[in-house]
Amino acid sequence: MKTRLRTALPTLALDRDSGIPIYRQLYEAYRQAILAGQLRKDAQLSSTRELAIELRISRHSVMNAFDQLLAEGYIRGDPGSGTFVQAGFLGDTDLHDKGKSRCQELPGDVLSREAIRIAKAPHMPASSPPIPFRRGLPAVDKFPLALWSRIVASCCRKMRSGDLNYTEPQGSVAFRRTIAEYLRNLRAVKCEPEQVFVVSGSQQGLQLIAHTLLNEGDPVCMEDPGYPGARSAFLGVGANVLTVPIDDEGMEVNKATQLPRMPKLIYVTPSHQFPLGVTMSLGRRLSLLDWAEQSPAWVVEDDYDSEFRFVSRPLSSLQGLSPDRVIYVGTFSKAMFPSLRLGYVVLPKNLVRAFSDSRRSNDFCAPFLTQAAMNEFIVEGHFARHLRRMRVLYAERQSAMLIALRREFGNYLQISNTDTGMDLVVWLPASISDTKASHLASRAGILTMPMSFFYSTPSKRGGLFLGFGAISQNQIREGVKKLRRAIHPLLSHG
Amino acid sequence: MKTRLRTALPTLALDRDSGIPIYRQLYEAYRQAILAGQLRKDAQLSSTRELAIELRISRHSVMNAFDQLLAEGYIRGDPGSGTFVQAGFLGDTDLHDKGKSRCQELPGDVLSREAIRIAKAPHMPASSPPIPFRRGLPAVDKFPLALWSRIVASCCRKMRSGDLNYTEPQGSVAFRRTIAEYLRNLRAVKCEPEQVFVVSGSQQGLQLIAHTLLNEGDPVCMEDPGYPGARSAFLGVGANVLTVPIDDEGMEVNKATQLPRMPKLIYVTPSHQFPLGVTMSLGRRLSLLDWAEQSPAWVVEDDYDSEFRFVSRPLSSLQGLSPDRVIYVGTFSKAMFPSLRLGYVVLPKNLVRAFSDSRRSNDFCAPFLTQAAMNEFIVEGHFARHLRRMRVLYAERQSAMLIALRREFGNYLQISNTDTGMDLVVWLPASISDTKASHLASRAGILTMPMSFFYSTPSKRGGLFLGFGAISQNQIREGVKKLRRAIHPLLSHG
Repeated sequence: MKTRLRTALPTLALDRDSGIPIYRQLYEAYRQAILAGQLRKDAQLSSTRELAIELRISRHSVMNAFDQLLAEGYIRGDPGSGTFVQAGFLGDTDLHDKGKSRCQELPGDVLSREAIRIAKAPHMPASSPPIPFRRGLPAVDKFPLALWSRIVASCCRKMRSGDLNYTEPQGSVAFRRTIAEYLRNLRAVKCEPEQVFVVSGSQQGLQLIAHTLLNEGDPVCMEDPGYPGARSAFLGVGANVLTVPIDDEGMEVNKATQLPRMPKLIYVTPSHQFPLGVTMSLGRRLSLLDWAEQSPAWVVEDDYDSEFRFVSRPLSSLQGLSPDRVIYVGTFSKAMFPSLRLGYVVLPKNLVRAFSDSRRSNDFCAPFLTQAAMNEFIVEGHFARHLRRMRVLYAERQSAMLIALRREFGNYLQISNTDTGMDLVVWLPASISDTKASHLASRAGILTMPMSFFYSTPSKRGGLFLGFGAISQNQIREGVKKLRRAIHPLLSHG
Repeated sequence: MKTRLRTALPTLALDRDSGIPIYRQLYEAYRQAILAGQLRKDAQLSSTRELAIELRISRHSVMNAFDQLLAEGYIRGDPGSGTFVQAGFLGDTDLHDKGKSRCQELPGDVLSREAIRIAKAPHMPASSPPIPFRRGLPAVDKFPLALWSRIVASCCRKMRSGDLNYTEPQGSVAFRRTIAEYLRNLRAVKCEPEQVFVVSGSQQGLQLIAHTLLNEGDPVCMEDPGYPGARSAFLGVGANVLTVPIDDEGMEVNKATQLPRMPKLIYVTPSHQFPLGVTMSLGRRLSLLDWAEQSPAWVVEDDYDSEFRFVSRPLSSLQGLSPDRVIYVGTFSKAMFPSLRLGYVVLPKNLVRAFSDSRRSNDFCAPFLTQAAMNEFIVEGHFARHLRRMRVLYAERQSAMLIALRREFGNYLQISNTDTGMDLVVWLPASISDTKASHLASRAGILTMPMSFFYSTPSKRGGLFLGFGAISQNQIREGVKKLRRAIHPLLSHG
């Protein structure tokens, strides 16, 4: 027998208790050693028999490890002479270090212009638990989870193998039919199931709209103040966002018509203006549609929480007045809960094909089970019952909020009641900075959004946007007290 | 009454004892007939009344079936004149031409350049039931639905109100930790949970990558032939897609280095090249990474079905060799089922922030329940067991496929075994057009993809890409027989 230098591994500590198979540990050790240059090109390895004895492991484990190293080209077996480290890739180049030094900082051209625009666009703060007065969260504490679990379980049991396949990019037919019927009945949306697109929420809907209809530089008209999520979607594709102020009747369309450029798209929240809560009057709706026809521009109607208007039935949708001009966007994030990830877009018929292509290229379709369970929840009447209960609950929470605000602040602060029981605006005296107030509040554990955050132009008056849909009446009362204590220094000097 | 030729279905066997509603059977029969080209564009259907009498079923059932077909766009109703087969399904249009006709209804400036590019990009055909030999579908017939239902139900019951809120844009922490561990152990991916992004599937991952890293005109390098979903994502953002041929060791990197421009991104499928099934050799992997360092370019590793390699254990990931350079993309669509809508992207650490912004602006996050259930499925060991069972099943199906192909076609057709038991390529004699063969097959109800569809340049030799992961051995045998009968005229004249 030839006495040649056989290469075992310099350092090899096999851990029998790690839960990682021995062969895998051996494979990894060799692989690392080869990549790191500890084992050089053409070095001969110990035989599987020798190694098994040396390491006191089964020969089978060694062979398994070698098989894998062979399959991946780290070693080669020369019949009759042994096993050798494969040529041509040995560790003179440390790939890892190379990579690291190259990527440590991102040079200016690494990200797309879109990514840079998105990073710069206003973001809503990241998710957080429902502490006072985080906005945008529905009453997750009162969601009927047990009922929902039963429905999900039953829908899951009823799934057949065909339901495991991709659904249509637009969403399952049954669910789209239900959504269309729901929107026809409750929101006077004029639509057929073919026009409905199931999406993961209004944000995906807005993204789909922005990417399918807008080019860099296209003028888009938004309300001022307005919804940051929409602004981020439009800014992302490089649209030129023009803003129009809001008064008691909604967007001031006569001012809009004086914009320097005709917009290609107009984004509005007519049922319940975000964040002021104003309902757009019928007169304004008609002027808006008229203006949109002349431009011509698509109108995007974001109907994000119309289900919860107390005073009257919610106004019929803008879409119903002009179904070929208006793209209607809605979400189940407020009426159900955000982590459901379901919403919908209703399109003019001539846009369906293009959106279907976009949707498929984007992420194919929504999960089947979520669609099936939501469909069942609506069809069986649970959704309508849930909405009724939530309206009562939100009315109670709103009332608790108003009482607490009056008790703590008297008539010192003006309150804009947004008529939906999930949020409202507290206006500060003219001299007080709302970012400063919001900052003080956050130091006391109270989340608020300064109203100036929603304006594209410096706002005349500061305010705090307060969400209270997700917290109990007790939390509301405690929260308002804390808020007063936190911002009191500002107010008394104001 | 006009005497016009009405089209009932050539063969229609309704089974009243099957437990499947009659309307659903009728719907399926029409749908298949339209997809297979048995019912041609503009053919008139019998009236609902006539059909009800003819088939001895209730008119209500017929109307239900027609409603569904209408909703899905398979048929159209012309008021006063009847119901007709709608244009544009498999048998009628060449896949490549599809895009062109799509946007014609809209004036040129209505859609974004992105939407127009996406419409023109090659699309995989729309979803369809698992009929032979539709590709890209796993064995949905053998998925353990009962077990999955129990896990979903249990996870849903365990949900707390906090779980109803938005999760992190990257996905829930527990699930990301599990994915990171899984990828570290099984694919030698070097990653921490912070680098993992939960997405709705590889397509959303590719979209996120394209939009975050690429501008219009940026050069991107792909394999030729290559994956149409990736091509569509890159073409969508206006990238300039350059292609490099494939040989037995994967992408011919020496040819890639001669491209006119250095790419900003290189997309590869090293574990299992799509669609040829080749595994990229270690030598090529290292040259590729070397070239990527020089460019410098990001490397996107799409590891879409590495779980199912038979012969050896799957090769370790490319990402493990250069974690700061490689973006790793994976999906649960194949290992679980497509309508789950879950996948993941592993990013170099310095890209995490930008992707997090993009993800939030895109659709916030994945549904909580799906993440929780998939997490449980992996943690409890069900996933590993499921994968083991599926490997055996796919090996059996592959073997049945190979036997059937040899029996029907002898040695006349060359078969490229792709080593994963979900699909393979049958190469046609040089003179035969694969689009023609695919067209003939589709008229006989057999779905195939012509290999020329995957090439950016005219391919030297035609072939048919056949998926068989989702169908039984019987269906495989019947399907191959039908395929032979369908394309026999071509072969005998070839």
